[in-house]
Amino acid sequence: MKKNVEVVNVGQKLSLFNDLWSPKIIAELNDNYVKLAKIQGEFIWHKHDDDDEMFFVISGDLNIELREKTLKLKPGELAVIPKGVEHRPVAKNEVSIMLIETKETINTGDAVDTQDIKSTKGSWI
Amino acid sequence: MKKNVEVVNVGQKLSLFNDLWSPKIIAELNDNYVKLAKIQGEFIWHKHDDDDEMFFVISGDLNIELREKTLKLKPGELAVIPKGVEHRPVAKNEVSIMLIETKETINTGDAVDTQDIKSTKGSWI
Repeated sequence: MKKNVEVVNVGQKLSLFNDLWSPKIIAELNDNYVKLAKIQGEFIWHKHDDDDEMFFVISGDLNIELREKTLKLKPGELAVIPKGVEHRPVAKNEVSIMLIETKETINTGDAVDTQDIKSTKGSWI
Repeated sequence: MKKNVEVVNVGQKLSLFNDLWSPKIIAELNDNYVKLAKIQGEFIWHKHDDDDEMFFVISGDLNIELREKTLKLKPGELAVIPKGVEHRPVAKNEVSIMLIETKETINTGDAVDTQDIKSTKGSWI
């Protein structure tokens, strides 16, 4: 646990990076990380066998494809993908999201790396 | 875990209640609840011995008093209060916040109820 108790401005943190599909850690609590990410395009199908994952949209329109339906999220909307549920984030235009997930969670879950998308737990920003 | 995977609109959920200091649960993940609350005035000093607590401000200006300093949060800003750290939320005008905390966390922590503030883990909305 980081010892400093401090205010974190989400917009300011988002201004610090532009790389896509590369989550940045901005806070931690109860064995979970709070992360920010910018995404655009189609991610890969994957699931997290042991961990739930929350997506909260800061800006842009995000689709989270599930096998049986598609969740359509706008800014100010969130969804929790339960452990074991296959999903694929898709964003036609750039989207900024806040993620909350366990410290063990990697972005690609059980999927393998591709040329464009590398597995990562994210890094502090 | 609720089985339905669905989109939750934070603003719509906030429109459903007006009672102060009464957190409403809107999602759960990894043994944590995501809650919304409306607060105004001074809460009571308390701490959560075993649980970190995240405050994310949706609207309004929130002060979180710590023993050694005061955190001043505006909309789009967050802070994590680590386990064991005494704190007191204070809002001159009404503030809407998103909270993330363990399912065991009660709003008043180790403090006792007062006439105006009752201990609660919150209820689903």
